[in-house]
Amino acid sequence: MRVLDRDTQLCMSLASRPGNFGTRFHNHLYAALDLNFVYKAFTTEDLEGAVRGIRALGIRGCAVSMPFKEAVIPLLDELDPSAAAIGSVNTIVNTAGHLKAYNTDYTAAQLLTGRHALDPAARVVLRGSGGMGKAVASALRDAGFTHGVLVARNEGAGRVLADRCGWTWQPDVPDAQPGDLLVNVTPIGMAGGPEEHALAFTPQHVAAAATVFDVVALPSETPLIAEARRQGKAVVTGLEVVALQALEQFVLYTGVRPTGEQVAAAVAFARG
Amino acid sequence: MRVLDRDTQLCMSLASRPGNFGTRFHNHLYAALDLNFVYKAFTTEDLEGAVRGIRALGIRGCAVSMPFKEAVIPLLDELDPSAAAIGSVNTIVNTAGHLKAYNTDYTAAQLLTGRHALDPAARVVLRGSGGMGKAVASALRDAGFTHGVLVARNEGAGRVLADRCGWTWQPDVPDAQPGDLLVNVTPIGMAGGPEEHALAFTPQHVAAAATVFDVVALPSETPLIAEARRQGKAVVTGLEVVALQALEQFVLYTGVRPTGEQVAAAVAFARG
Repeated sequence: MRVLDRDTQLCMSLASRPGNFGTRFHNHLYAALDLNFVYKAFTTEDLEGAVRGIRALGIRGCAVSMPFKEAVIPLLDELDPSAAAIGSVNTIVNTAGHLKAYNTDYTAAQLLTGRHALDPAARVVLRGSGGMGKAVASALRDAGFTHGVLVARNEGAGRVLADRCGWTWQPDVPDAQPGDLLVNVTPIGMAGGPEEHALAFTPQHVAAAATVFDVVALPSETPLIAEARRQGKAVVTGLEVVALQALEQFVLYTGVRPTGEQVAAAVAFARG
Repeated sequence: MRVLDRDTQLCMSLASRPGNFGTRFHNHLYAALDLNFVYKAFTTEDLEGAVRGIRALGIRGCAVSMPFKEAVIPLLDELDPSAAAIGSVNTIVNTAGHLKAYNTDYTAAQLLTGRHALDPAARVVLRGSGGMGKAVASALRDAGFTHGVLVARNEGAGRVLADRCGWTWQPDVPDAQPGDLLVNVTPIGMAGGPEEHALAFTPQHVAAAATVFDVVALPSETPLIAEARRQGKAVVTGLEVVALQALEQFVLYTGVRPTGEQVAAAVAFARG
Protein backbone atom coordinates (compact mmCIF):
# COMPACT_ATOMS: atom_id res chain seq x y z
CA MET A 1 0.00 0.00 0.00
CA ARG A 2 1.24 3.49 -0.79
CA VAL A 3 2.23 5.95 1.92
CA LEU A 4 -0.76 7.90 3.18
CA ASP A 5 -0.62 11.68 3.32
CA ARG A 6 -2.97 14.59 3.99
CA ASP A 7 -4.53 14.26 0.52
CA THR A 8 -5.48 10.60 0.90
CA GLN A 9 -9.22 10.09 0.44
CA LEU A 10 -11.16 7.70 2.65
CA CYS A 11 -13.86 5.33 1.43
CA MET A 12 -15.67 3.14 3.89
CA SER A 13 -18.47 0.68 4.54
CA LEU A 14 -21.27 0.55 7.06
CA ALA A 15 -22.64 -2.83 8.08
CA SER A 16 -23.90 -4.41 11.27
CA ARG A 17 -21.24 -7.10 10.85
CA PRO A 18 -18.50 -5.92 8.48
CA GLY A 19 -16.85 -8.48 6.23
CA ASN A 20 -13.37 -8.28 4.73
CA PHE A 21 -14.16 -8.44 1.01
CA GLY A 22 -14.68 -4.71 0.39
CA THR A 23 -11.70 -3.61 2.46
CA ARG A 24 -9.33 -6.00 0.71
CA PHE A 25 -10.83 -5.48 -2.78
CA HIS A 26 -10.70 -1.70 -2.75
CA ASN A 27 -7.32 -1.34 -1.00
CA HIS A 28 -5.79 -3.85 -3.41
CA LEU A 29 -7.01 -1.87 -6.41
CA TYR A 30 -5.88 1.45 -4.90
CA ALA A 31 -2.39 -0.03 -4.62
CA ALA A 32 -2.46 -1.62 -8.09
CA LEU A 33 -3.60 1.65 -9.69
CA ASP A 34 -1.52 3.91 -7.40
CA LEU A 35 -4.59 5.88 -6.29
CA ASN A 36 -4.36 8.01 -3.15
CA PHE A 37 -7.28 6.34 -1.37
CA VAL A 38 -7.73 4.12 1.65
CA TYR A 39 -10.72 1.92 2.51
CA LYS A 40 -11.93 0.94 5.93
CA ALA A 41 -14.99 -0.97 7.23
CA PHE A 42 -17.11 0.42 10.03
CA THR A 43 -20.15 -0.57 12.00
CA THR A 44 -22.39 1.83 13.91
CA GLU A 45 -25.28 2.04 16.32
CA ASP A 46 -25.96 5.64 15.24
CA LEU A 47 -26.67 5.72 11.52
CA GLU A 48 -27.59 9.40 11.50
CA GLY A 49 -24.35 10.26 13.32
CA ALA A 50 -22.36 8.10 10.91
CA VAL A 51 -23.82 9.90 7.88
CA ARG A 52 -23.23 13.25 9.53
CA GLY A 53 -19.63 12.17 10.04
CA ILE A 54 -19.33 11.23 6.35
CA ARG A 55 -20.40 14.76 5.46
CA ALA A 56 -18.36 16.54 8.14
CA LEU A 57 -15.15 14.63 7.38
CA GLY A 58 -15.50 14.62 3.61
CA ILE A 59 -15.42 10.82 3.37
CA ARG A 60 -15.61 10.14 -0.36
CA GLY A 61 -17.74 7.03 -0.51
CA CYS A 62 -19.59 4.55 1.65
CA ALA A 63 -20.89 1.05 0.98
CA VAL A 64 -24.11 0.40 2.86
CA SER A 65 -25.10 -3.10 3.98
CA MET A 66 -27.81 -4.60 6.13
CA PRO A 67 -29.62 -3.28 8.10
CA PHE A 68 -29.04 0.27 6.83
CA LYS A 69 -30.01 0.05 3.14
CA GLU A 70 -33.46 1.58 3.51
CA ALA A 71 -33.06 3.53 6.77
CA VAL A 72 -30.28 5.62 5.23
CA ILE A 73 -32.42 7.05 2.43
CA PRO A 74 -33.91 10.04 4.35
CA LEU A 75 -30.38 11.10 5.34
CA LEU A 76 -29.17 11.51 1.74
CA ASP A 77 -29.52 14.23 -0.89
CA GLU A 78 -30.22 12.42 -4.16
CA LEU A 79 -31.17 8.96 -5.37
CA ASP A 80 -29.73 7.58 -8.58
CA PRO A 81 -32.31 5.59 -10.59
CA SER A 82 -30.56 2.36 -9.53
CA ALA A 83 -31.50 3.10 -5.91
CA ALA A 84 -34.82 4.82 -6.60
CA ALA A 85 -36.01 1.83 -8.64
CA ILE A 86 -35.97 -0.40 -5.58
CA GLY A 87 -35.97 1.98 -2.62
CA SER A 88 -32.71 0.50 -1.38
CA VAL A 89 -29.20 1.98 -1.21
CA ASN A 90 -25.90 0.12 -1.12
CA THR A 91 -23.56 2.95 -2.15
CA ILE A 92 -23.16 6.62 -1.17
CA VAL A 93 -20.96 8.99 -3.16
CA ASN A 94 -19.99 12.26 -1.45
CA THR A 95 -19.20 15.07 -3.85
CA ALA A 96 -18.37 18.24 -1.90
CA GLY A 97 -20.96 17.43 0.74
CA HIS A 98 -23.70 16.31 -1.68
CA LEU A 99 -24.58 12.69 -0.92
CA LYS A 100 -25.90 10.73 -3.91
CA ALA A 101 -27.15 7.20 -3.41
CA TYR A 102 -26.80 4.24 -5.78
CA ASN A 103 -27.59 0.57 -5.75
CA THR A 104 -24.77 -1.29 -7.47
CA ASP A 105 -26.38 -4.67 -6.70
CA TYR A 106 -29.09 -3.59 -9.12
CA THR A 107 -26.48 -2.35 -11.59
CA ALA A 108 -24.49 -5.58 -11.28
CA ALA A 109 -27.57 -7.76 -11.88
CA GLN A 110 -28.41 -5.74 -14.98
CA LEU A 111 -24.85 -5.93 -16.31
CA LEU A 112 -24.76 -9.70 -15.71
CA THR A 113 -27.90 -10.31 -17.77
CA GLY A 114 -26.07 -8.70 -20.67
CA ARG A 115 -22.72 -10.34 -20.00
CA HIS A 116 -24.30 -13.81 -19.90
CA ALA A 117 -26.63 -12.98 -22.84
CA LEU A 118 -29.66 -14.05 -20.80
CA ASP A 119 -32.75 -14.10 -23.01
CA PRO A 120 -35.46 -11.65 -21.81
CA ALA A 121 -38.06 -14.01 -23.28
CA ALA A 122 -37.09 -16.59 -20.68
CA ARG A 123 -39.54 -17.46 -17.95
CA VAL A 124 -37.92 -16.43 -14.64
CA VAL A 125 -38.50 -18.16 -11.34
CA LEU A 126 -36.91 -16.10 -8.58
CA ARG A 127 -36.86 -17.17 -4.93
CA GLY A 128 -36.60 -14.42 -2.32
CA SER A 129 -38.15 -11.06 -1.56
CA GLY A 130 -35.55 -9.33 0.66
CA GLY A 131 -33.35 -6.38 -0.28
CA MET A 132 -31.20 -8.35 -2.70
CA GLY A 133 -34.31 -10.02 -4.12
CA LYS A 134 -35.70 -6.59 -4.88
CA ALA A 135 -32.48 -5.54 -6.60
CA VAL A 136 -32.22 -8.63 -8.80
CA ALA A 137 -35.93 -8.93 -9.65
CA SER A 138 -36.14 -5.23 -10.53
CA ALA A 139 -32.99 -5.44 -12.65
CA LEU A 140 -34.42 -8.39 -14.60
CA ARG A 141 -37.77 -6.67 -15.04
CA ASP A 142 -36.03 -3.50 -16.25
CA ALA A 143 -33.91 -5.60 -18.63
CA GLY A 144 -37.15 -6.81 -20.25
CA PHE A 145 -37.89 -10.08 -18.44
CA THR A 146 -41.69 -9.83 -18.46
CA HIS A 147 -42.52 -13.45 -17.63
CA GLY A 148 -41.74 -14.27 -14.06
CA VAL A 149 -42.77 -16.05 -10.92
CA LEU A 150 -41.75 -14.54 -7.61
CA VAL A 151 -41.50 -17.31 -5.03
CA ALA A 152 -41.57 -16.15 -1.42
CA ARG A 153 -42.86 -17.49 1.87
CA ASN A 154 -43.75 -13.93 2.88
CA GLU A 155 -46.87 -13.37 0.83
CA GLY A 156 -47.05 -9.63 1.53
CA ALA A 157 -43.52 -8.82 0.41
CA GLY A 158 -43.75 -11.41 -2.35
CA ARG A 159 -46.92 -9.98 -3.87
CA VAL A 160 -45.61 -6.39 -3.69
CA LEU A 161 -42.43 -7.29 -5.51
CA ALA A 162 -44.21 -9.54 -8.02
CA ASP A 163 -46.71 -6.78 -8.79
CA ARG A 164 -43.92 -4.26 -9.24
CA CYS A 165 -42.33 -6.56 -11.82
CA GLY A 166 -45.59 -7.54 -13.52
CA TRP A 167 -44.88 -11.12 -12.40
CA THR A 168 -46.98 -13.53 -10.39
CA TRP A 169 -46.41 -14.58 -6.81
CA GLN A 170 -46.36 -18.16 -5.60
CA PRO A 171 -45.50 -19.58 -2.18
CA ASP A 172 -43.48 -22.46 -3.68
CA VAL A 173 -41.55 -23.21 -6.82
CA PRO A 174 -44.03 -24.45 -9.42
CA ASP A 175 -43.28 -28.08 -10.28
CA ALA A 176 -45.58 -28.10 -13.28
CA GLN A 177 -43.95 -25.36 -15.27
CA PRO A 178 -40.55 -24.51 -13.80
CA GLY A 179 -38.57 -21.62 -15.26
CA ASP A 180 -35.95 -21.25 -17.95
CA LEU A 181 -33.98 -18.98 -15.65
CA LEU A 182 -33.83 -20.01 -11.98
CA VAL A 183 -32.67 -17.32 -9.57
CA ASN A 184 -31.91 -17.87 -5.89
CA VAL A 185 -31.85 -14.77 -3.73
CA THR A 186 -32.45 -16.54 -0.40
CA PRO A 187 -29.72 -17.64 2.08
CA ILE A 188 -30.23 -21.27 1.04
CA GLY A 189 -26.78 -22.73 0.43
CA MET A 190 -24.94 -20.08 2.44
CA ALA A 191 -22.03 -21.33 4.54
CA GLY A 192 -22.82 -21.39 8.24
CA GLY A 193 -26.54 -20.92 7.65
CA PRO A 194 -29.27 -23.36 8.70
CA GLU A 195 -29.81 -24.44 5.07
CA GLU A 196 -26.15 -24.66 4.11
CA HIS A 197 -26.55 -28.00 2.35
CA ALA A 198 -30.02 -27.41 0.88
CA LEU A 199 -31.02 -26.62 -2.69
CA ALA A 200 -33.20 -23.62 -3.49
CA PHE A 201 -34.42 -25.55 -6.57
CA THR A 202 -34.69 -29.31 -7.00
CA PRO A 203 -32.54 -31.21 -9.52
CA GLN A 204 -35.74 -31.62 -11.55
CA HIS A 205 -36.24 -27.83 -11.64
CA VAL A 206 -32.64 -27.44 -12.71
CA ALA A 207 -33.08 -30.07 -15.41
CA ALA A 208 -35.94 -28.06 -16.93
CA ALA A 209 -34.00 -24.77 -16.89
CA ALA A 210 -31.39 -23.25 -19.19
CA THR A 211 -29.59 -21.08 -16.64
CA VAL A 212 -29.15 -21.04 -12.86
CA PHE A 213 -28.30 -17.76 -11.13
CA ASP A 214 -27.40 -18.02 -7.43
CA VAL A 215 -26.69 -14.81 -5.54
CA VAL A 216 -25.11 -16.60 -2.56
CA ALA A 217 -21.41 -15.67 -2.53
CA LEU A 218 -20.07 -17.54 0.48
CA PRO A 219 -19.45 -20.02 -0.97
CA SER A 220 -20.10 -19.06 -4.55
CA GLU A 221 -20.00 -22.77 -5.42
CA THR A 222 -23.26 -23.52 -3.60
CA PRO A 223 -24.94 -26.93 -3.78
CA LEU A 224 -27.29 -25.37 -6.35
CA ILE A 225 -24.47 -24.12 -8.57
CA ALA A 226 -22.75 -27.50 -8.23
CA GLU A 227 -25.96 -29.26 -9.31
CA ALA A 228 -26.36 -26.90 -12.28
CA ARG A 229 -22.77 -27.47 -13.39
CA ARG A 230 -23.27 -31.23 -13.03
CA GLN A 231 -26.20 -30.96 -15.44
CA GLY A 232 -24.22 -28.80 -17.85
CA LYS A 233 -26.37 -25.71 -17.32
CA ALA A 234 -25.22 -22.12 -17.71
CA VAL A 235 -24.53 -20.52 -14.31
CA VAL A 236 -24.24 -17.04 -12.86
CA THR A 237 -22.62 -17.05 -9.41
CA GLY A 238 -22.84 -14.81 -6.38
CA LEU A 239 -19.15 -14.11 -6.72
CA GLU A 240 -19.85 -12.38 -10.02
CA VAL A 241 -22.47 -10.19 -8.31
CA VAL A 242 -20.22 -9.33 -5.38
CA ALA A 243 -17.23 -8.54 -7.58
CA LEU A 244 -19.21 -6.52 -10.12
CA GLN A 245 -21.10 -4.46 -7.55
CA ALA A 246 -17.81 -3.71 -5.76
CA LEU A 247 -16.20 -2.74 -9.06
CA GLU A 248 -19.06 -0.35 -9.85
CA GLN A 249 -18.59 1.20 -6.40
CA PHE A 250 -14.89 1.55 -7.10
CA VAL A 251 -15.60 3.36 -10.38
CA LEU A 252 -18.12 5.68 -8.70
CA TYR A 253 -15.68 6.59 -5.92
CA THR A 254 -12.50 7.01 -7.95
CA GLY A 255 -13.65 7.75 -11.48
CA VAL A 256 -11.19 5.08 -12.66
CA ARG A 257 -12.20 1.79 -14.33
CA PRO A 258 -9.62 -0.98 -13.76
CA THR A 259 -8.91 -3.61 -16.41
CA GLY A 260 -10.50 -7.04 -16.19
CA GLU A 261 -7.15 -8.49 -15.14
CA GLN A 262 -6.78 -5.96 -12.33
CA VAL A 263 -10.30 -6.71 -11.12
CA ALA A 264 -9.67 -10.46 -11.22
CA ALA A 265 -6.49 -10.02 -9.19
CA ALA A 266 -8.33 -7.85 -6.64
CA VAL A 267 -11.14 -10.40 -6.32
CA ALA A 268 -8.65 -13.23 -5.82
CA PHE A 269 -6.84 -11.17 -3.19
CA ALA A 270 -10.06 -10.14 -1.47
CA ARG A 271 -11.15 -13.78 -1.13
CA GLY A 272 -7.71 -15.04 -0.17
CA MET B 1 1.90 -0.92 5.47
CA ARG B 2 0.06 -4.05 6.52
CA VAL B 3 -3.10 -5.20 4.76
CA LEU B 4 -6.20 -3.57 6.22
CA ASP B 5 -9.13 -5.70 7.32
CA ARG B 6 -12.42 -5.24 9.15
CA ASP B 7 -10.63 -5.06 12.51
CA THR B 8 -8.32 -2.20 11.54
CA GLN B 9 -8.75 0.79 13.86
CA LEU B 10 -8.75 4.33 12.51
CA CYS B 11 -7.03 7.27 14.16
CA MET B 12 -7.30 10.71 12.62
CA SER B 13 -6.60 14.40 12.92
CA LEU B 14 -8.77 17.48 12.60
CA ALA B 15 -7.16 20.72 11.48
CA SER B 16 -8.15 23.63 9.31
CA ARG B 17 -5.09 22.92 7.17
CA PRO B 18 -3.82 19.38 7.74
CA GLY B 19 -0.09 18.73 7.61
CA ASN B 20 1.63 15.46 6.79
CA PHE B 21 3.67 14.89 9.96
CA GLY B 22 1.03 13.04 11.98
CA THR B 23 -0.15 10.86 9.10
CA ARG B 24 3.38 9.76 8.24
CA PHE B 25 4.55 9.43 11.87
CA HIS B 26 1.66 7.26 13.05
CA ASN B 27 1.36 5.08 9.95
CA HIS B 28 5.11 4.45 10.00
CA LEU B 29 4.98 3.28 13.61
CA TYR B 30 1.90 1.12 12.96
CA ALA B 31 3.88 -0.65 10.25
CA ALA B 32 7.06 -0.91 12.33
CA LEU B 33 5.16 -2.37 15.28
CA ASP B 34 2.71 -4.41 13.15
CA LEU B 35 -0.33 -2.76 14.76
CA ASN B 36 -3.69 -3.02 13.02
CA PHE B 37 -4.29 0.73 12.82
CA VAL B 38 -4.45 3.31 10.07
CA TYR B 39 -4.13 7.10 10.41
CA LYS B 40 -5.69 9.74 8.22
CA ALA B 41 -5.86 13.54 8.35
CA PHE B 42 -9.17 15.38 7.95
CA THR B 43 -10.42 18.92 7.91
CA THR B 44 -13.98 19.99 8.61
CA GLU B 45 -16.37 22.90 8.54
CA ASP B 46 -18.71 21.09 10.95
CA LEU B 47 -16.84 20.32 14.16
CA GLU B 48 -19.91 19.00 15.95
CA GLY B 49 -20.68 16.67 13.03
CA ALA B 50 -17.06 15.50 12.94
CA VAL B 51 -17.12 14.60 16.65
CA ARG B 52 -20.47 12.89 16.23
CA GLY B 53 -18.88 10.89 13.42
CA ILE B 54 -15.96 9.93 15.67
CA ARG B 55 -18.46 8.52 18.15
CA ALA B 56 -20.77 6.89 15.59
CA LEU B 57 -17.94 5.23 13.66
CA GLY B 58 -15.86 4.21 16.67
CA ILE B 59 -12.80 6.13 15.49
CA ARG B 60 -10.19 5.37 18.16
CA GLY B 61 -8.34 8.64 18.42
CA CYS B 62 -8.22 12.15 17.03
CA ALA B 63 -5.54 14.82 17.08
CA VAL B 64 -7.05 18.29 17.33
CA SER B 65 -5.31 21.33 15.86
CA MET B 66 -6.15 24.98 15.31
CA PRO B 67 -8.84 26.30 15.34
CA PHE B 68 -10.66 23.50 17.15
CA LYS B 69 -8.66 23.11 20.38
CA GLU B 70 -11.03 25.03 22.61
CA ALA B 71 -14.29 24.77 20.63
CA VAL B 72 -14.19 20.98 20.87
CA ILE B 73 -14.32 20.89 24.68
CA PRO B 74 -18.12 21.04 25.14
CA LEU B 75 -18.48 18.09 22.72
CA LEU B 76 -16.37 15.72 24.84
CA ASP B 77 -17.04 13.61 27.93
CA GLU B 78 -13.99 14.02 30.15
CA LEU B 79 -10.92 16.23 30.42
CA ASP B 80 -7.60 14.77 31.50
CA PRO B 81 -5.66 17.14 33.81
CA SER B 82 -3.29 17.93 30.91
CA ALA B 83 -6.22 19.49 29.00
CA ALA B 84 -8.10 20.84 32.01
CA ALA B 85 -4.98 22.69 33.20
CA ILE B 86 -5.03 24.93 30.14
CA GLY B 87 -8.55 24.64 28.74
CA SER B 88 -7.18 23.38 25.45
CA VAL B 89 -7.39 19.95 23.80
CA ASN B 90 -5.07 18.45 21.21
CA THR B 91 -5.97 14.76 21.59
CA ILE B 92 -9.22 12.79 21.89
CA VAL B 93 -9.25 9.14 22.92
CA ASN B 94 -12.46 7.20 22.20
CA THR B 95 -13.00 4.24 24.49
CA ALA B 96 -16.30 2.54 23.63
CA GLY B 97 -17.95 5.87 22.88
CA HIS B 98 -16.51 7.75 25.87
CA LEU B 99 -14.42 10.66 24.57
CA LYS B 100 -11.58 11.71 26.89
CA ALA B 101 -9.52 14.77 26.05
CA TYR B 102 -5.82 15.31 26.60
CA ASN B 103 -3.23 17.91 25.77
CA THR B 104 -0.02 16.19 24.79
CA ASP B 105 1.66 19.53 23.99
CA TYR B 106 1.44 20.19 27.73
CA THR B 107 2.67 16.68 28.48
CA ALA B 108 5.53 17.02 25.99
CA ALA B 109 6.66 20.37 27.45
CA GLN B 110 6.66 18.86 30.94
CA LEU B 111 8.61 15.79 29.82
CA LEU B 112 11.16 17.98 28.01
CA THR B 113 11.91 20.01 31.13
CA GLY B 114 12.87 16.75 32.78
CA ARG B 115 14.72 15.30 29.81
CA HIS B 116 16.86 18.44 29.46
CA ALA B 117 17.24 18.77 33.25
CA LEU B 118 16.00 22.37 33.12
CA ASP B 119 16.40 24.02 36.52
CA PRO B 120 13.06 25.16 38.02
CA ALA B 121 14.94 27.93 39.82
CA ALA B 122 15.68 29.49 36.41
CA ARG B 123 14.05 32.78 35.50
CA VAL B 124 11.83 32.08 32.48
CA VAL B 125 11.09 34.60 29.75
CA LEU B 126 8.39 33.18 27.50
CA ARG B 127 7.11 34.95 24.39
CA GLY B 128 3.58 34.13 23.24
CA SER B 129 0.12 33.75 24.72
CA GLY B 130 -1.72 31.55 22.16
CA GLY B 131 -2.79 27.92 22.61
CA MET B 132 0.75 26.56 22.49
CA GLY B 133 1.94 29.38 24.76
CA LYS B 134 -0.65 28.31 27.31
CA ALA B 135 0.47 24.69 27.09
CA VAL B 136 4.18 25.44 27.54
CA ALA B 137 3.81 28.15 30.17
CA SER B 138 1.46 25.99 32.23
CA ALA B 139 3.73 22.97 31.92
CA LEU B 140 6.69 25.00 33.17
CA ARG B 141 4.67 26.49 36.02
CA ASP B 142 3.46 23.02 37.03
CA ALA B 143 7.05 21.75 36.84
CA GLY B 144 7.97 24.32 39.49
CA PHE B 145 9.19 27.30 37.45
CA THR B 146 7.90 30.05 39.75
CA HIS B 147 9.95 32.96 38.37
CA GLY B 148 8.73 33.99 34.96
CA VAL B 149 7.97 36.84 32.62
CA LEU B 150 5.23 36.35 30.08
CA VAL B 151 5.92 38.55 27.07
CA ALA B 152 2.92 39.17 24.83
CA ARG B 153 1.69 42.01 22.64
CA ASN B 154 -1.88 41.07 23.65
CA GLU B 155 -2.04 42.50 27.16
CA GLY B 156 -5.35 40.79 28.02
CA ALA B 157 -4.30 37.27 27.10
CA GLY B 158 -0.81 37.92 28.38
CA ARG B 159 -1.93 39.04 31.84
CA VAL B 160 -4.38 36.16 32.19
CA LEU B 161 -1.72 33.58 31.39
CA ALA B 162 0.92 35.35 33.51
CA ASP B 163 -1.46 35.49 36.48
CA ARG B 164 -2.32 31.82 36.08
CA CYS B 165 1.39 30.99 36.28
CA GLY B 166 2.17 33.44 39.09
CA TRP B 167 4.46 35.24 36.62
CA THR B 168 4.52 38.87 35.50
CA TRP B 169 3.43 40.21 32.16
CA GLN B 170 5.50 42.55 30.01
CA PRO B 171 4.84 43.82 26.49
CA ASP B 172 8.51 43.35 25.46
CA VAL B 173 11.45 41.23 26.42
CA PRO B 174 13.19 42.95 29.36
CA ASP B 175 16.68 44.07 28.33
CA ALA B 176 17.75 44.82 31.89
CA GLN B 177 17.30 41.40 33.36
CA PRO B 178 16.78 38.84 30.60
CA GLY B 179 15.97 35.23 31.52
CA ASP B 180 18.01 32.11 32.14
CA LEU B 181 15.51 30.12 30.08
CA LEU B 182 14.23 31.82 26.92
CA VAL B 183 11.12 30.27 25.37
CA ASN B 184 9.64 31.25 22.01
CA VAL B 185 6.04 30.22 21.44
CA THR B 186 5.31 32.79 18.70
CA PRO B 187 5.51 32.13 14.92
CA ILE B 188 8.72 34.18 14.73
CA GLY B 189 11.22 32.13 12.69
CA MET B 190 8.57 29.95 11.06
CA ALA B 191 9.16 29.11 7.37
CA GLY B 192 6.83 30.99 5.07
CA GLY B 193 5.71 33.39 7.80
CA PRO B 194 6.19 37.18 7.75
CA GLU B 195 8.95 36.95 10.39
CA GLU B 196 10.73 33.93 8.95
CA HIS B 197 14.19 35.49 9.33
CA ALA B 198 13.57 37.32 12.61
CA LEU B 199 14.74 36.45 16.12
CA ALA B 200 12.27 36.19 19.00
CA PHE B 201 15.14 37.13 21.34
CA THR B 202 18.19 39.27 20.52
CA PRO B 203 21.72 37.79 20.50
CA GLN B 204 22.28 39.80 23.72
CA HIS B 205 19.32 38.07 25.37
CA VAL B 206 20.67 34.73 24.24
CA ALA B 207 24.11 35.60 25.60
CA ALA B 208 22.63 36.18 29.07
CA ALA B 209 20.65 32.89 29.04
CA ALA B 210 21.57 29.29 29.78
CA THR B 211 18.98 27.60 27.58
CA VAL B 212 16.89 28.53 24.52
CA PHE B 213 13.64 26.65 23.88
CA ASP B 214 11.97 27.36 20.52
CA VAL B 215 8.63 25.69 19.81
CA VAL B 216 8.74 26.47 16.07
CA ALA B 217 9.10 23.15 14.24
CA LEU B 218 9.18 24.18 10.58
CA PRO B 219 12.08 24.55 10.45
CA SER B 220 13.23 23.32 13.82
CA GLU B 221 16.58 24.98 13.13
CA THR B 222 15.16 28.49 13.41
CA PRO B 223 17.37 31.60 13.34
CA LEU B 224 16.99 31.67 17.14
CA ILE B 225 18.13 28.06 17.59
CA ALA B 226 21.01 28.73 15.19
CA GLU B 227 22.05 31.77 17.24
CA ALA B 228 21.85 29.78 20.48
CA ARG B 229 23.98 26.98 19.04
CA ARG B 230 26.50 29.55 17.79
CA GLN B 231 26.83 30.81 21.35
CA GLY B 232 27.12 27.29 22.75
CA LYS B 233 23.86 27.44 24.67
CA ALA B 234 21.66 24.46 25.50
CA VAL B 235 18.69 24.22 23.13
CA VAL B 236 15.28 22.57 23.08
CA THR B 237 13.77 22.50 19.57
CA GLY B 238 10.24 22.47 18.22
CA LEU B 239 10.98 19.14 16.61
CA GLU B 240 11.35 17.62 20.06
CA VAL B 241 7.94 19.01 21.04
CA VAL B 242 6.24 17.82 17.87
CA ALA B 243 7.78 14.35 18.07
CA LEU B 244 7.12 13.90 21.78
CA GLN B 245 3.53 15.10 21.65
CA ALA B 246 2.87 12.77 18.69
CA LEU B 247 4.50 9.89 20.57
CA GLU B 248 2.30 10.50 23.62
CA GLN B 249 -0.75 10.48 21.30
CA PHE B 250 0.46 7.21 19.81
CA VAL B 251 0.76 5.64 23.27
CA LEU B 252 -2.71 6.89 24.28
CA TYR B 253 -4.29 5.46 21.11
CA THR B 254 -2.52 2.10 20.93
CA GLY B 255 -1.39 1.39 24.49
CA VAL B 256 2.04 0.55 23.05
CA ARG B 257 5.22 2.56 23.72
CA PRO B 258 7.76 2.29 20.88
CA THR B 259 11.49 2.29 21.54
CA GLY B 260 13.55 5.46 21.13
CA GLU B 261 15.01 4.04 17.93
CA GLN B 262 11.57 3.34 16.49
CA VAL B 263 10.43 6.85 17.36
CA ALA B 264 13.56 8.38 15.80
CA ALA B 265 12.95 6.41 12.59
CA ALA B 266 9.31 7.49 12.48
CA VAL B 267 10.26 11.14 13.00
CA ALA B 268 12.85 10.95 10.23
CA PHE B 269 10.29 9.34 7.93
CA ALA B 270 7.57 11.84 8.86
CA ARG B 271 9.85 14.77 7.99
CA GLY B 272 11.29 13.14 4.85
